[in-house]
Parts: sequence; structure tokens; C-alpha cells
Amino acid sequence: MLYASTNSMNMKNAIVLLSGGMDSAVTLYLAKKEYMCRALIFDYGQKAKTEIGYAKKLAETAGVPYEISNITMPWKGSSLLDSAVSVPDASSGGQDDIPNTYVPARNMIFLSFGVSFAEATGAEAVFIGAHQMDFSNYPDCRDVFFKALQGAIDKGTREGILGKGIKIVTPIIDKRKEEIVRIGSKLGVPFEHTWSCYRDGAAPCGKCESCLFRMNAFEKAGIKEQVLSIKL
Amino acid sequence: MLYASTNSMNMKNAIVLLSGGMDSAVTLYLAKKEYMCRALIFDYGQKAKTEIGYAKKLAETAGVPYEISNITMPWKGSSLLDSAVSVPDASSGGQDDIPNTYVPARNMIFLSFGVSFAEATGAEAVFIGAHQMDFSNYPDCRDVFFKALQGAIDKGTREGILGKGIKIVTPIIDKRKEEIVRIGSKLGVPFEHTWSCYRDGAAPCGKCESCLFRMNAFEKAGIKEQVLSIKL
Repeated sequence: MLYASTNSMNMKNAIVLLSGGMDSAVTLYLAKKEYMCRALIFDYGQKAKTEIGYAKKLAETAGVPYEISNITMPWKGSSLLDSAVSVPDASSGGQDDIPNTYVPARNMIFLSFGVSFAEATGAEAVFIGAHQMDFSNYPDCRDVFFKALQGAIDKGTREGILGKGIKIVTPIIDKRKEEIVRIGSKLGVPFEHTWSCYRDGAAPCGKCESCLFRMNAFEKAGIKEQVLSIKL
Repeated sequence: MLYASTNSMNMKNAIVLLSGGMDSAVTLYLAKKEYMCRALIFDYGQKAKTEIGYAKKLAETAGVPYEISNITMPWKGSSLLDSAVSVPDASSGGQDDIPNTYVPARNMIFLSFGVSFAEATGAEAVFIGAHQMDFSNYPDCRDVFFKALQGAIDKGTREGILGKGIKIVTPIIDKRKEEIVRIGSKLGVPFEHTWSCYRDGAAPCGKCESCLFRMNAFEKAGIKEQVLSIKL
């Protein structure tokens, strides 16, 4: 497949990992300010299939071309993937607990695909909407992980060795969730085209940790959600 | 899916990335000496689909259970994947050239899956049969890359932070290709169940770089190849 490595506006190129959730949506709109973006969406066996449709719709609304990577992980290892394990309601565990919604090595997998896509298309950056403030304690959402993975990218890609390099960019890594809502609101992010729920119902469950983080964030930001009643 | 995290022989558990080629085959047999192994095979859109059948057959012959991860990389970025780009004959380029058979970030992707599989199943190690001696100058086959990626695994997995860690093991990283043949021969590796050719014919093409490395290795090791005439 051929991709143009430059574009009409002479902007730099970036890949944006797009989950369909609000964090990656805001990240996409932040990236768009400086880069010509391509979105990368994953169909990796998640129960919340709805988010894939939302991610596509979001990319279309933002005017950003996208690709979908299909992935199978037969070992699952997470309640987000394994039909034999229920997605729990928001955790009552301690702050240091890692809930069973953690998907082993997911961000390493997703970023590796993003780096591959970037290298194949001449993109200089891979954006990911991870943040380490109001989050579920996932080890692969911490800045220290992204910095370490950057080292591997610098050593293990053609671009890292011979070229200009490929950078992981985490623009909301230290933002609180309500700040992310405010930033997105100012940028015109269509939050109605984002899906945060870990479960896959006709509407968000309102009980899982991801729903709770989202509801709290909008409440603290003082912004009323526009809820879609349809599946995309 | 449930996996037993211990086994009857109290051996440690490992994941072995299995391509169907000779290097990963020898690596599997080395790993088996110390670990209870599970193999991980990738169907990632490679032209050489034959290697997948060889990898399965090899795992079965070795008595090792395996999983297959299906992956789509719509951007391709390599002659091993892209039907619009021919796999070249063995390179006449300089030693520092990276041929178009390089697949961007492939080993980072494969190892990320291996780490995910390891974390989900309680395995302590992920074996990969990369080596940096007689190779095609791929940036992601160098020891310096694997060491850097180890840092990311230590920082970005539950096992890395809370547990015993997951180690990348590269037992043939500094072996010459003919040494790999000799080691495998002593271990009883069924080389007739390995496929090295980048192309997908009824028999290996004998002209691509991978075929040439293999033929030279067997010749230097003084071991005659048993060639299968059937596709597995």
C-alpha cells in the first residue's frame, strides 16, 4: 500500500491511536493542531465492540483517515476480553490494586503497531491518550513506561537508527480527567461520538470504573454530557 | 481461557515465539531444556504462509502446545507483506543496508504479544530466536534493542512492577548461523519441519536472502539438509 509521506500543508505526519473513548478523542484533536494525522483503531476482541464504531465515526467527524488492525489474543487475560470473567463495577479496592480490566501489555502492543504504521508511512510521532492521574492503576499508562518504550523504539526501528526517529507523544499524561474534558470541549471534540463503557450495552452501564471516571470528570468540569441513545 | 500456572514437573513456564524458520526451531528446543514451553505463532499477512504450517507441525513434533495470533497490518511496509512489492533475491547491497524485507517494528509487535501471553499465563520468559551475526541487518534483531525493550517490560507490566518479572531470552543472539545448525542438530531439531524461504512456493526458492543464509549455514556446518517436497 502506498501512502504519501508529505502532505499539501507541509505539516508533519502522525499516527493517533484511537480507542473510541474520550481520552483518545481529545488526543486526536490536540494532535490535529500540529500534525497531519492518521488514526489507528484496534479490533482486539474487546467486549465493548461499540467503541470501534464510535472510533470510526470520530475519525470521520474529525476528517482523519483511519486504518483498523484486527488482532487476536487467544489467552485474553482480562475481563475486557474474556467472556468467562465479568467486567466488575467500579473498584472498591485500594489505590494500588490493578483491576482485572487490565489487559496485559495492551499499550505495548498498540504502540508497536502505531510505530510500525508510522515507519511505513513516514510519520514522526505516535500519539496515545494515556494519563496517569484519574486512571485504573494500569502499569502501561505511566509516563515511566512510555519513556522506557521510547528507548526501545530508538534502538529497534530503521527510523530510530538511520532516520529522524519516531516519538511517542502523550499530551494528556499528567492531566486530570476533568481537565481533559475542558480541553476537549474547547477544541470542539464531539464527545457524543465517544464511548467509555467497558461493557457493551445499548447505553453506557454507568457502573464500571470507566463510566464512573467519565461521569465524575464531566461533573467536575461542569459540562453536561450529550448522550447518544443509538449505537454507532 | 484458563491456563495452569504451574505444571507437573515444577518447571518454570515460557513462551517461545515460533516462526516456522530454523532459528526459532532451535530456540524452542533450547528453551525446552529448562522450561515448560508454549509456542506462539503469528499469522500476520506474510506471503510465506507455508511457514505457519511448518511452525504448527514443529510445535506438535516438539510436543509443545501453541496458540496462533492473527494480526492485520494494513500499511504493510515490507516486501514480505505487500503484494505490490517483490521479495528481492539476496541483497547485493552493503552490509549497512536494511533490505525491503524488513517489517517495521515486527519484533516489538511479536514480543509484545509474547509478553501479554506470558503475563496471562504466569510465564516468566519469552524466547525469541533472533541473532545479530549472519542476518539481514534488521534493527530489531540486535541485542541492544532487546535490552531496551526489557526496560519497557519491567516498567509497563503487572509482573514487572509487582511480580517476578518477564524476561526476554535470546539464546542464539551471538551465534553464527552454522553454529545454530550444529546446536539444533545435536538437540534433534527436525529441520525438515522448518521453512526459511521468504517466498511461498512448492519448494524454497533458493535465491532470497533467507534461503541463502540457510544454505550457507548447512554447508558450513557440514550437515546435509533433508528437504521436504510437500507443503505442510
